[in-house]
Amino acid sequence: MTVQSTGGGRRAISAAAVPDLVSKAREGDPRSVGRLVSLVEDESPLLPELMRLLAPHTGGARIVGLTGAPGVGKSTSTNALIGELRRRGQRVAVLAVDPSSPFSGGALLGDRIRMGDHVLDPGVFIRSMAARGHLGGLAWTTPQALRVLDAAGFDVVLVETVGVGQSEVEVAGQADTTIVLLAPGMGDGIQAAKAGILEIGDLYVVNKSDRDGADRVRRDLRAMLGLAERRDDAWRPPVLGTAASTGAGVPDVVDAIEQHGEWLRTSGELHRRRVRRAREEIETLALTALRRRWGSVDDGDRLDELAAAVVAGTEDPYTAAERLL
Amino acid sequence: MTVQSTGGGRRAISAAAVPDLVSKAREGDPRSVGRLVSLVEDESPLLPELMRLLAPHTGGARIVGLTGAPGVGKSTSTNALIGELRRRGQRVAVLAVDPSSPFSGGALLGDRIRMGDHVLDPGVFIRSMAARGHLGGLAWTTPQALRVLDAAGFDVVLVETVGVGQSEVEVAGQADTTIVLLAPGMGDGIQAAKAGILEIGDLYVVNKSDRDGADRVRRDLRAMLGLAERRDDAWRPPVLGTAASTGAGVPDVVDAIEQHGEWLRTSGELHRRRVRRAREEIETLALTALRRRWGSVDDGDRLDELAAAVVAGTEDPYTAAERLL
Repeated sequence: MTVQSTGGGRRAISAAAVPDLVSKAREGDPRSVGRLVSLVEDESPLLPELMRLLAPHTGGARIVGLTGAPGVGKSTSTNALIGELRRRGQRVAVLAVDPSSPFSGGALLGDRIRMGDHVLDPGVFIRSMAARGHLGGLAWTTPQALRVLDAAGFDVVLVETVGVGQSEVEVAGQADTTIVLLAPGMGDGIQAAKAGILEIGDLYVVNKSDRDGADRVRRDLRAMLGLAERRDDAWRPPVLGTAASTGAGVPDVVDAIEQHGEWLRTSGELHRRRVRRAREEIETLALTALRRRWGSVDDGDRLDELAAAVVAGTEDPYTAAERLL
Repeated sequence: MTVQSTGGGRRAISAAAVPDLVSKAREGDPRSVGRLVSLVEDESPLLPELMRLLAPHTGGARIVGLTGAPGVGKSTSTNALIGELRRRGQRVAVLAVDPSSPFSGGALLGDRIRMGDHVLDPGVFIRSMAARGHLGGLAWTTPQALRVLDAAGFDVVLVETVGVGQSEVEVAGQADTTIVLLAPGMGDGIQAAKAGILEIGDLYVVNKSDRDGADRVRRDLRAMLGLAERRDDAWRPPVLGTAASTGAGVPDVVDAIEQHGEWLRTSGELHRRRVRRAREEIETLALTALRRRWGSVDDGDRLDELAAAVVAGTEDPYTAAERLL
C-alpha cells in the first residue's frame, strides 16, 4: 500500500516530465500516480496536457463512492472492502476527499494509518485529498483525480467522503455506484431521513450490525426506500449489514457492488451516468475558463467598464452580459 | 401601504405593456411596481427589455439590508424603521426575501400584516419575494427586483432576509448599508461569532435592549468588532440598541444609516460597492445565458456529443470545454 498525503516539500513538475509520469503511473508506479494526483490538487496549469494524455486510457475502472456521517465506520469499512476486493484479485485505489477542510493530511492521514492492513500490498493505493480548490472545489478536482487513478489501471477506485451537507451528494454524482453507510445509535431515523440520503444510495450498508438497534435501522431504511416509486426495470437498492471490524457481511457488499455494476452495464445506465458526469465536467471547465478570462487583466478591465456603465445607468445588465459574451 | 405577495391568478403581461408599466411605476403606482417585481420573480423573458427601460432611472435609492436570526424582531424593526424614515419624508420600499422557501406569501405575508401601521400610507410599498429562482436564486433575482424599486423612485429600499446560512452574506452583498440585527437571550456570543456575521455588518443593532443581557451582547459585540484590523479611514461599525416595539433607539439607527451613507459617498466606497455588484450581476447573467444556450436543443446535442467523446476516451474534458466555447 502507498499512503500519500499532501503538503510540504512537493517538488515542482515540468511540462516535459508529464508524459514520463503518465507512462510510469500506467506501469503501476505509486510515486508517479501520487505526483499526478498532486497536479490535480494543486490545480496545475499542466492539467489540460495531463488530461489529454490520460484520455485514451480511461473508462476501465469501477468508481465506487462511499459516504456516511462521522462515526459510522467509514475507514474500517474501506479497509474491509479493500481486503475483500484484493482477495478477488482486484487492484484498488482509495481517494479520501475531505470537503470540510482546506488542508489535507491531518485527520484523514490518521484514518489512513488505521488502514494499515494493506501497507505491504502494491495493489493498493490510498490518497487523501483536500477539496480546497477555489475554482469549484470537489466538483472540479475530484473527477480529474479519479481520471488519474482510472488511467493508472486500478480495477476499483473507492471515493470516500464524510457525509457533510452537499458533499455526499456531489460524491454520489461522481461515482458509478454509491454506498451510503449508516450505523445504529446515531439518531437512526433522523440520519436516514436526512435530505437526499434516500436518493443517492445504490447500496445501503448498516455497519456495526452486531450492536443494538441495527435491525431497526435496516428495517426503517427498507420501509422508507420502499415508499419511493420506481420503474419495473429500475435498480432496487439493497440494505445490507456489516460488522466491518470483524469483516462480517463484507463479501455480500462486494457481491452487491458487482451486481449493481452488471445492472449498470446491461441497462445502459452506466453510459448515461458517465455521459451526464462528463457533461457537468465539461460545463464546469468551460465556465471556469470563462470566469478566469473575464477576471484577467484585459477582460477584467472590460468587465469593470461594463459594470461602471450599469451603475451609471447608461447600460442595463443584460446588454452588458451580451457584450461580455 | 401596499402589501403584495405572489402566487395565484397572476395575469400574463405582454411585451407591449412593459413600457406603460414602467411609466406608471415611476409615477408611483403600486400595482405597476408590484407587477414589475412579479416579472422578476417569474424570471420572465421580458426581463432584458424591462431592465433596458429601467437603467436610466436607477441609482437614486439607498439600498439597506436588514438581516438577523429568526426571533430577533426583524418585522417589528422594519416597521419601526419605516415609521422613522416616513417622519423624515422618505419614500420607503421593503423587499422581504425568503431564501428558505420555494414559495412566497406564507409566513412572510403574516409578517407583513404585522407591519400594518403603514397600511394607509401611499409612500410605503412592501413586497415578499421567494428566492425560488432555479437559475441562481437570491443572487439572480434580488438585484433585479431592487432595480425595479430603485427606478420607481423610492428613497430607501429595505431588503429584509432571515439570517440563514449563506443568504445573509448574499443580501449584504446587494446592499449599500447592511444592518445586522441581534437580540439578547438567543445564544448571544454564539450568534455573534457565527461565521461571517462580523464581516458583513455596517451597523449592528441589538434589539429588545430593555431585556436582560442586552448590554452584555452589545459589549461582547463591540469587543469582537474591535479586534478586527481596519485602516484609519475605514468605517467603524457602530453597535446600537433598540426596543423596536416601543420605537426606542430607532431614530439613532436612521441617523447611523445616514452617516454611513455619507461615508460611502465621500470615501468613494459607494461607487466601488456598486461596481462590484454590477460586475457580479453581469457575470451571473452571462454565465446563465451560456448555460441556457448549452442546455438548449442545438447546443445540448453538441454538449452530449462532447461528453460521449470524453466517456469514450477520444477527447479530454479540457479540449471538450474549449470546443464548447
